[in-house]
Amino acid sequence: MSVTTAAGFEAAGIACGIKPDGVPDLALVATGDHAPVAAAGVFTTNLATAAPVQISREHLEDGQAAAVILSSGNANAATGEPGRRDARRMCGLTAHELGCAPEDVLVCSTGLIGVPLPMDPIEAGIPKLVGSLGAEPAAGEAAADAILTTDTVRKVSRADLSAGGRAAVVSGMAKGAAMLSPAMATMLAVLTTDAAVTPAALERALGSAVVDTFNALVVDGCTSTNDTVVVLAGGAAGNEPITASGPDFTALEASMTQVCADLAGQMAADAEGATKRARVVVRGARSVDDARRAARGVATSQLVQCSLNGGDPYWGRVLSELGASGAVFDPERTAIAYDDITVCHDGIAAVHDAAALERVMGRSEIQITCDLHEGTGEATVVFTDLSHAYIDENRTTS
Amino acid sequence: MSVTTAAGFEAAGIACGIKPDGVPDLALVATGDHAPVAAAGVFTTNLATAAPVQISREHLEDGQAAAVILSSGNANAATGEPGRRDARRMCGLTAHELGCAPEDVLVCSTGLIGVPLPMDPIEAGIPKLVGSLGAEPAAGEAAADAILTTDTVRKVSRADLSAGGRAAVVSGMAKGAAMLSPAMATMLAVLTTDAAVTPAALERALGSAVVDTFNALVVDGCTSTNDTVVVLAGGAAGNEPITASGPDFTALEASMTQVCADLAGQMAADAEGATKRARVVVRGARSVDDARRAARGVATSQLVQCSLNGGDPYWGRVLSELGASGAVFDPERTAIAYDDITVCHDGIAAVHDAAALERVMGRSEIQITCDLHEGTGEATVVFTDLSHAYIDENRTTS
Repeated sequence: MSVTTAAGFEAAGIACGIKPDGVPDLALVATGDHAPVAAAGVFTTNLATAAPVQISREHLEDGQAAAVILSSGNANAATGEPGRRDARRMCGLTAHELGCAPEDVLVCSTGLIGVPLPMDPIEAGIPKLVGSLGAEPAAGEAAADAILTTDTVRKVSRADLSAGGRAAVVSGMAKGAAMLSPAMATMLAVLTTDAAVTPAALERALGSAVVDTFNALVVDGCTSTNDTVVVLAGGAAGNEPITASGPDFTALEASMTQVCADLAGQMAADAEGATKRARVVVRGARSVDDARRAARGVATSQLVQCSLNGGDPYWGRVLSELGASGAVFDPERTAIAYDDITVCHDGIAAVHDAAALERVMGRSEIQITCDLHEGTGEATVVFTDLSHAYIDENRTTS
Repeated sequence: MSVTTAAGFEAAGIACGIKPDGVPDLALVATGDHAPVAAAGVFTTNLATAAPVQISREHLEDGQAAAVILSSGNANAATGEPGRRDARRMCGLTAHELGCAPEDVLVCSTGLIGVPLPMDPIEAGIPKLVGSLGAEPAAGEAAADAILTTDTVRKVSRADLSAGGRAAVVSGMAKGAAMLSPAMATMLAVLTTDAAVTPAALERALGSAVVDTFNALVVDGCTSTNDTVVVLAGGAAGNEPITASGPDFTALEASMTQVCADLAGQMAADAEGATKRARVVVRGARSVDDARRAARGVATSQLVQCSLNGGDPYWGRVLSELGASGAVFDPERTAIAYDDITVCHDGIAAVHDAAALERVMGRSEIQITCDLHEGTGEATVVFTDLSHAYIDENRTTS
């Protein structure tokens, strides 16, 4: 399973030599006939956007693309005009091999910031990469493997879809194990679908799909320079193109959200150094924005992350982070629960079964529910604990 | 040296039994004659304010106070109306012993959130505490010791001041080793001065003194429920009261800032689990607000904190955090230096002496200077590295 699960797409992944030791580091996803199809993208909100993000944004202006080339091991970020030249060259060489226009190729990179991209292995690798294109599952999996950095497992997903009465599929691959934060999780993802979709509908569905999935995932609160999610809709399913106001739009949105949620869950499970996962659900906020703010405040807290690491049910830190989040509420109405055990009610300690709570805190996945009792705003953020291993993985880059 | 360095103040610190094992946990600072003097305070911006913060705010409405009682080991936060009753009772019992009005007593607590304050030991302790009041250095030091929690060393400071031609002094004590974040560092601090100052001038000077000191210190980015800085101006120096527009105001402000900066520096040096300290200076921002935002973004980054821990000069993370901070700038004009070694120029890698950089990164204190080349806004934030020890200290509260 991977991006080639949707009919009409090919993929490839090879080791070209960006990373040492022959680890796969160059991937390609392309339409079967190398012709452009409807495409959309969502990119990092970081002001220091990497060169490939800048170039992909340009190439997506017409709402179509034929291919996405992805490299791992070097982010091509903080590389200035030479970096943009390199990103354009990756598109140009790929287009030359595929026989399409350079503007129809999107480019993503992930890895170290501030180091010039090693173009020699990439230039030598691109013809080999295009030569390896295939529609079989193994080709899709090779592409999914070649985009990983500190990830320990391949991340792929699929969801079914009925489009104009025809069976279709949304499939996808992703990478990301740190620098994960809302808006957006540091990550790359490529989605493909064999449904026909107009560029406008595709853009709208993608914008909606990332909100409560990739953008609701926190590992370390860091927003990277390279975050990119792109989707290509090939149309091999033979349906009339889905429009934003048409009958199948909601189903498309749901399938894309399902794939994004699945991939985000896989990223959380593979988060650097994480030993536990938590889902913080804030409800009863005055607005959805307030709920998101509050949930993010809890999820990005180093102290809450440490408590999760130790299995410590110290809800005082949760209440404190809600209070510091910027959300507007009366702390003396707030309730906090770990799974089904309410530990705080009306802003003070609630009598609870200590033995049951200890069992909950021993779980590897728990839900922290905070009810602000102010309104109907609700949001969920998934986060992970802070561990020695996270520090070990990030204290040096060499 | 401590809060009794300023003439006209007494202090005491005892172990009353809030903490186990006879560790000091109850402190008092009072005017020598127990009469109210000009007073001002700055409190946490956390919405979930602890009971003592709420009560101290009330008691400061008239701009005067005769005493500050402080307890450690329990924050009296998330304790609702019973918590406010307990905080008021601490003021009432102290006032009764001192012979002043309850409204002239301020109260601070620090420790665990969400646990009812153990009033029995506090009620029994207050008469003993008042009985131990003294103006000698040892009494001030006992008070400074009794407010510590995870701190490993006492934090005290002093600065001289000329007020209306008379020699005066600003002295202070503080505690705080985690949950340290701007606006404000989680901490308690009591300042005293023998200068006579009007309440309005005192409030203004304190507001100014905390900005680039306590509020520019990040350990873990967490803003606590109990942060409090209070100052009492006794007037024993015999000067005409300093007013906000008077000739000595700037000197007062400078002395108070000096004491706050010294105490903040002591907190950074004693930060939980920290092995290194860094000062991030952002200059050339479009505004001071933008500079603060950018400096805070770098200082609160788990990835930057991990790099500091490992002595890794990976400036890509610094640029990325600047870009994600919300400050407005062109990343391709940014320069980044570690001490005097420029590693990034115009947003890309700068040629530098690698051996010299390695020596810099081995230092226990380094400065990261980021020049945005956009304007004249400048700000500094002090922060510490993220270590295994920080996690170990915070993964359980029991």
